Amino acid sequence: MEPTNNWRSKLHAIIYESETPAGKAFDIVLLFLIISSIIVVMLDSVAKFHLKYGQYLYVIEWIFTIVFTIEYILRLVSIKKPWKYVLSPFGIIDLLAIVPTYLSFIIVGAQSLLVLRVLRLLRVFRIFRLVHFISEMQFLSVAILNSLRKISIFILFVLSVVVILGSVIYLVEDENSGFTSIPQSVYWAIVTITTVGYGDIAPATTLGKFIASFIMLLGYGILAVPTGIVTTEMALAVRYRHKHSNNACPVCGKEGHEHDAVFCKYCGAKL
Amino acid sequence: MEPTNNWRSKLHAIIYESETPAGKAFDIVLLFLIISSIIVVMLDSVAKFHLKYGQYLYVIEWIFTIVFTIEYILRLVSIKKPWKYVLSPFGIIDLLAIVPTYLSFIIVGAQSLLVLRVLRLLRVFRIFRLVHFISEMQFLSVAILNSLRKISIFILFVLSVVVILGSVIYLVEDENSGFTSIPQSVYWAIVTITTVGYGDIAPATTLGKFIASFIMLLGYGILAVPTGIVTTEMALAVRYRHKHSNNACPVCGKEGHEHDAVFCKYCGAKL
Amino acid sequence: MEPTNNWRSKLHAIIYESETPAGKAFDIVLLFLIISSIIVVMLDSVAKFHLKYGQYLYVIEWIFTIVFTIEYILRLVSIKKPWKYVLSPFGIIDLLAIVPTYLSFIIVGAQSLLVLRVLRLLRVFRIFRLVHFISEMQFLSVAILNSLRKISIFILFVLSVVVILGSVIYLVEDENSGFTSIPQSVYWAIVTITTVGYGDIAPATTLGKFIASFIMLLGYGILAVPTGIVTTEMALAVRYRHKHSNNACPVCGKEGHEHDAVFCKYCGAKL
Amino acid sequence: MEPTNNWRSKLHAIIYESETPAGKAFDIVLLFLIISSIIVVMLDSVAKFHLKYGQYLYVIEWIFTIVFTIEYILRLVSIKKPWKYVLSPFGIIDLLAIVPTYLSFIIVGAQSLLVLRVLRLLRVFRIFRLVHFISEMQFLSVAILNSLRKISIFILFVLSVVVILGSVIYLVEDENSGFTSIPQSVYWAIVTITTVGYGDIAPATTLGKFIASFIMLLGYGILAVPTGIVTTEMALAVRYRHKHSNNACPVCGKEGHEHDAVFCKYCGAKL
Repeated sequence: MEPTNNWRSKLHAIIYESETPAGKAFDIVLLFLIISSIIVVMLDSVAKFHLKYGQYLYVIEWIFTIVFTIEYILRLVSIKKPWKYVLSPFGIIDLLAIVPTYLSFIIVGAQSLLVLRVLRLLRVFRIFRLVHFISEMQFLSVAILNSLRKISIFILFVLSVVVILGSVIYLVEDENSGFTSIPQSVYWAIVTITTVGYGDIAPATTLGKFIASFIMLLGYGILAVPTGIVTTEMALAVRYRHKHSNNACPVCGKEGHEHDAVFCKYCGAKL
Repeated sequence: MEPTNNWRSKLHAIIYESETPAGKAFDIVLLFLIISSIIVVMLDSVAKFHLKYGQYLYVIEWIFTIVFTIEYILRLVSIKKPWKYVLSPFGIIDLLAIVPTYLSFIIVGAQSLLVLRVLRLLRVFRIFRLVHFISEMQFLSVAILNSLRKISIFILFVLSVVVILGSVIYLVEDENSGFTSIPQSVYWAIVTITTVGYGDIAPATTLGKFIASFIMLLGYGILAVPTGIVTTEMALAVRYRHKHSNNACPVCGKEGHEHDAVFCKYCGAKL
Repeated sequence: MEPTNNWRSKLHAIIYESETPAGKAFDIVLLFLIISSIIVVMLDSVAKFHLKYGQYLYVIEWIFTIVFTIEYILRLVSIKKPWKYVLSPFGIIDLLAIVPTYLSFIIVGAQSLLVLRVLRLLRVFRIFRLVHFISEMQFLSVAILNSLRKISIFILFVLSVVVILGSVIYLVEDENSGFTSIPQSVYWAIVTITTVGYGDIAPATTLGKFIASFIMLLGYGILAVPTGIVTTEMALAVRYRHKHSNNACPVCGKEGHEHDAVFCKYCGAKL
Repeated sequence: MEPTNNWRSKLHAIIYESETPAGKAFDIVLLFLIISSIIVVMLDSVAKFHLKYGQYLYVIEWIFTIVFTIEYILRLVSIKKPWKYVLSPFGIIDLLAIVPTYLSFIIVGAQSLLVLRVLRLLRVFRIFRLVHFISEMQFLSVAILNSLRKISIFILFVLSVVVILGSVIYLVEDENSGFTSIPQSVYWAIVTITTVGYGDIAPATTLGKFIASFIMLLGYGILAVPTGIVTTEMALAVRYRHKHSNNACPVCGKEGHEHDAVFCKYCGAKL
């Protein structure tokens, strides 16, 4: 069994890790394939290209699907607990990257499912997980997670403003200006408070314009709140990182010790 | 009188507090009812839904109103000073949540008042007051209140810019481009400085476009000012919280002592 | 001469200062008059109001002008160096607040000058100068002045991007899409990079949309730069203020001493 | 050979440096010429001006080109290693500033190349390199470079959101609303997430509006992330600058020593 195991662990190092030259090469080729396949999906949706090169794109698409299928099988084979991989978020994304093409072959009405292939893009984040960006990504996620509670209050506030002022403008404005229902007016309020401003719906009465001005200035001003929250949390994360070293305790393996700490604060072992 | 009082204090714990399991369940049910009733109000405003399901929505609306009325009566009964509750902001909102439906039944022209029922959404903030979000909400309100003075100067500056440049563009631009009066031109200036940009009114002359460009770049740049104010205040609030403990003085009950303080700085008692 | 002088210094205290009750009352009345006169100017520009109430608005306008003229004369009389006042920024604004109405009476074509009356709004800032907002205003101006150099580099960068990418899109796009000249295309690039997005001019070709996407993402991302600059400067200003007391040296009168300073760092006197 | 060399070094001081009065004067004249020539290029693209003053603009353009050509030759002559200059970024920009005019004279179809002359604007940054803005520019570039990794993760996230949600809305919305292909829908998603909002393409179905609202709120909220990153990095750069002196080691010439350092941390020499 040893040689098989050896063969499997080598394959695992190539596919799941990126420390060996072969692992790095695999990552780069995969990144190139993913982005190419996304471009093919996008081009195929353009009527002009579909008419002219539809056949070629169809063939290329099948090549991509077969390559990704082989990759999926290799991932299953080279890992110890295949089911854990299959049910992991990345396992599901990897499956979603190949299923739509097969489905479109079997079921006739499944053509629209082909759009799902753009979910392949999420696979790019797997490559990120492996390389140098990992500490930056951790930093960003910690700062965003820490500010999540404050930001959820902010979002609830924005949603309340949008529902209430959307309803008020529905009362004030005529249906001819596009404010045909409360949901429609709330949609307009979101378009306005986020300063997007399509202009497909716009107030026509003086009172409506007054309320609209209020929503705009509110949206313009309160943008400062999420920014302030995230900036403060990031500053805290930077300060924490400066104060605490990245060295793990040699006994318990926990991190987060201060730079001048001599003993592990979790297990008391000498660092 | 004791048993009654006991019954009242139990009801008070369920309705006004959320520490008991019954109190938590009450909060969750109420939250669900509020959001459902808002959805019903919104759907009823869509002509398509009103025609098809208007009758059902009417019945559901009355069920909500009766439930909220019972809740309002229970709130009155279970509190010691009912008038204080009635006149409190939340008491007024609770009343506004049920009055429009009754009014639409009595007065014929009061149909449009039904939109006021979306104010029920404000009741959601009551649930916030009770749970874990309270310290986050305090943090945000302290930071925003502290920056209010600086932000009011900023708002006055923006309003002045908008009135003056709105008047200038009224002089420069033709009425055909939509700049029919100064208030209209000021409205356009607000749409532009907040970077909303509907496009229903847009300058046509070269000079007008020049002024518009100036307003846009100004609005784009000065967004930094409120953000800077709020971020600085939040950083100060974080630093204050880090430096000062949350422990209250056992004698006078005041908070805000520094971490290494041994005596209360307000009454001199040992902490 | 003494009584006259006394009479003048009393008037000076009322008009130019706001510490006495009479001075405060004068400020409030003036604030009310300025805002009322602005509203009259704005209403008069609306065709509907002008037709209906034009005569009344004309009379009210003259009353305002006469009141402001009397105020201007009183300001001249009560100050020691009238010419210094006349040539000061606020003196010029005060004059501009009354001149257009007289000019429209004398010269026939000067009707459009009446719009200049909105410059009266700038007089509101005089009241700000007097009251509690002064320290907040100083804080904001110091932070903005300190960041001016960095921001001017940012503005030069944005202007270069806008001119160069505006010219590129002029090459790429057709005249039919609205890109009729380089200045017009630069205007569109400003509308896009500031995320205003009127939609009166929009790219039609694929390459044009690609460039537009780049400008949008650039404008969306680099907004972080001025915000970062202003926030950093504000944090520095806050830190400086925390570290340095507001007490002036009793001998040389200079401020900016650290809280624990015992001797003036400029003249060596004991604080 | 000495006198020639002397003549060359004098010319070098005028053209490449700005410490002598002649060098400063040269910089100011050049700045004025660059901006004037940009204005001429822009005006010439306006049909109205081209028809009226096209001949004059043509002559002026040739004068600018000849002056810039002379300047280019003088730069070549006065520098020790001309090839290094020619291949440097500024050398290429300087050449691009004169080539299009000559090409339009030789080749008939090269008229559109004339737009490239706006690249002359990049020459303005050369003047920046010489004067007081250098330390500010360094500060900004350090902060932006340090945050580049975190921002690239952010950009990858935004691009993924835009491709995936653009594809989803392509499925949901009709072709009549303007969502004719996935690239077109992705373009719309970029217009929406950056809060530009042209309004040339806008969702018509309820589900489409729901997704659009989500993209808008997302784009509105996540603007906080790049701002937070850049602000944190700027604060770090400010702190570093406060802590470290600008004095270079007298032996090894390296900078970045702390204020209280007595010995160079790179070579051990006394500072």
